[in-house]
Amino acid sequence: MARSLPTALDGTDLLARVEKALAEFLDAQAPALDAVAPDLAPVMGTVQDFLLDGGKRLRPAFAYWGWRGAGGADGEEVVRAASALELLHACALIHDDVMDGSDTRRGKPAVHRRFAALHRGERWQGVPEQFGTAAAVLLGDLCLVWSDTMLARCGLPPEALRRAQPVYDTMRLELMAGQYLDVLEQAVASTEVDRALRVARYKTAKYTIERPLHLGASLAGGDQAVLDALSAYGLPLGEAFQLRDDVLGVFGDPSETGKPAGDDLREGKRTVLVAEALAAATPRQEAVVARLLGDPRLDADGVAALREVLVDTGALEATEQRITRSLDEALGALDAAAGSGTLDATACTALRELAVAATARTV
Amino acid sequence: MARSLPTALDGTDLLARVEKALAEFLDAQAPALDAVAPDLAPVMGTVQDFLLDGGKRLRPAFAYWGWRGAGGADGEEVVRAASALELLHACALIHDDVMDGSDTRRGKPAVHRRFAALHRGERWQGVPEQFGTAAAVLLGDLCLVWSDTMLARCGLPPEALRRAQPVYDTMRLELMAGQYLDVLEQAVASTEVDRALRVARYKTAKYTIERPLHLGASLAGGDQAVLDALSAYGLPLGEAFQLRDDVLGVFGDPSETGKPAGDDLREGKRTVLVAEALAAATPRQEAVVARLLGDPRLDADGVAALREVLVDTGALEATEQRITRSLDEALGALDAAAGSGTLDATACTALRELAVAATARTV
Repeated sequence: MARSLPTALDGTDLLARVEKALAEFLDAQAPALDAVAPDLAPVMGTVQDFLLDGGKRLRPAFAYWGWRGAGGADGEEVVRAASALELLHACALIHDDVMDGSDTRRGKPAVHRRFAALHRGERWQGVPEQFGTAAAVLLGDLCLVWSDTMLARCGLPPEALRRAQPVYDTMRLELMAGQYLDVLEQAVASTEVDRALRVARYKTAKYTIERPLHLGASLAGGDQAVLDALSAYGLPLGEAFQLRDDVLGVFGDPSETGKPAGDDLREGKRTVLVAEALAAATPRQEAVVARLLGDPRLDADGVAALREVLVDTGALEATEQRITRSLDEALGALDAAAGSGTLDATACTALRELAVAATARTV
Repeated sequence: MARSLPTALDGTDLLARVEKALAEFLDAQAPALDAVAPDLAPVMGTVQDFLLDGGKRLRPAFAYWGWRGAGGADGEEVVRAASALELLHACALIHDDVMDGSDTRRGKPAVHRRFAALHRGERWQGVPEQFGTAAAVLLGDLCLVWSDTMLARCGLPPEALRRAQPVYDTMRLELMAGQYLDVLEQAVASTEVDRALRVARYKTAKYTIERPLHLGASLAGGDQAVLDALSAYGLPLGEAFQLRDDVLGVFGDPSETGKPAGDDLREGKRTVLVAEALAAATPRQEAVVARLLGDPRLDADGVAALREVLVDTGALEATEQRITRSLDEALGALDAAAGSGTLDATACTALRELAVAATARTV
């Protein structure tokens, strides 16, 4: 998605600071890579290109505001710690594209495609696609390692890092587990709303929102009441955010989402939206879904036919209602935490803006 | 390779202790995975099966003896820290098999093949191979994350872990960089001895031997003199070990190496052995290599023809001489370090045994 988020919440100009922290970290790593071999230049170039593209920096933003919510003061150390999540996310995306065989990411060729193109351009031996896959697997691994390195070297005191380590471990375990469940859902072709919601919970609610909030709060020494307040906001927001993503994946404008129209339908993604449709579908509508969903050669007519089913069954409307309910729940939890003084008031204002922006219907 | 190593150096019974530490760590992680979803049972089962197979535990052994060499006392904490390297290595192997499209690992189906078989057995939707690849990429990622978790929770004091962090970061960076170079060498079909030696240096000398030694020594607070002494032993030994592996990959008995005869030749591995052969080959011999090396359908006659070239060009003999020279250099460095008291004497005895066992011609 290319939805933009508030760039300068509370005057912190977080997006630019995350970008700068990432750029500095990669610059500091370059000599180590170059020392192994100058042939690694395309590896560093690709990681830089992938990371320094002005993404939304959602996970760093939640980690930063989790820190602030727990009473931590602004500073570059926490921005560096939060930015490490972008490297973890880069690993997830690069590997995800390999697993899905996706051609593009954010409107540019996926990493495995870039290395396949390099192979082809250089007329190397072997199969370009196999080289591309191998390079992308290794680049993802490298980003995963670097996320750990960047967090360890953020400059926060060792006690802070020690407090955050279990959260970070859980977050990464849930990421990998959630990705596996996602792949499994496509394979078993589940049609159950509950199973689709479970994937959304791990892939987005926890990984994108709750755990980053907890990571920041743990670094700041937030207690259990702080963590609970952040969960009460983060989990429903995460669900709303994932559902918005699902809706945009089917109905979004390609110029805004950065992916071809109907790509999620071609991939056969088992979203809550699809599960809702199947739960309410007539036999004829069910047949349309069975025939078209997951067809890699799905054309514009096919996309239109599936969209029609999602609208006519009431699935789109039901999903929009779910988004509204979840967002309201998240904002209510935030108000309660601000009112009781459990979370810092400035942070609550920023988290409210983030929530609204992350679940908006359009850019 | 299935070459065995001394199991009870200095009465420490290291192999059994590493196995126990890994089993306990995975048992402790099981509830977290199960909490995400019971569907993750095959993931845990596969990791356990992969890790608790009685492997050689080379990297933990070098890490443990690096610790002892620097004067650290025996204890389960350091065994747990050292065992974390097996999880890192599991990631490397699982991803390596995906990248190479290997069918087997240690005589059993590769992880991606197992999950493809699960997909086929359950008659799930989609392409079994794609599911297998996705699962293996994620399992490797999970092992990489767990290696980090296991090290962080080994029980050694935080200062020890902090000292070791830069070594661990460098080790992981070099692993991923070395793997990329390895893939690149096959692609550019390099015939240069120097380039092949560079890959051997990163993939084995540093990753398998020098960095594990340094990791253990850093945990124990070893100074630069200790690290240098370990490098003087570890780097030449690593080269000898990789060259032995290359020789066994071509000439080894499948019942001992655990892989089909000639697999390295079918893969087109650009080893030092091959580079030496090409450097000395007649045009006729060169043509044999060009025609057969890297042919995925290479049969027994083809393997025999390539072996003949490797012998007749003197490449095998030259490689054996390199192994002997490098092993002698490693052992000489060890004697010097023991004599000067830079390294602990018991550790030097164990490292000598490890060196000889790791480079032996047969099991």
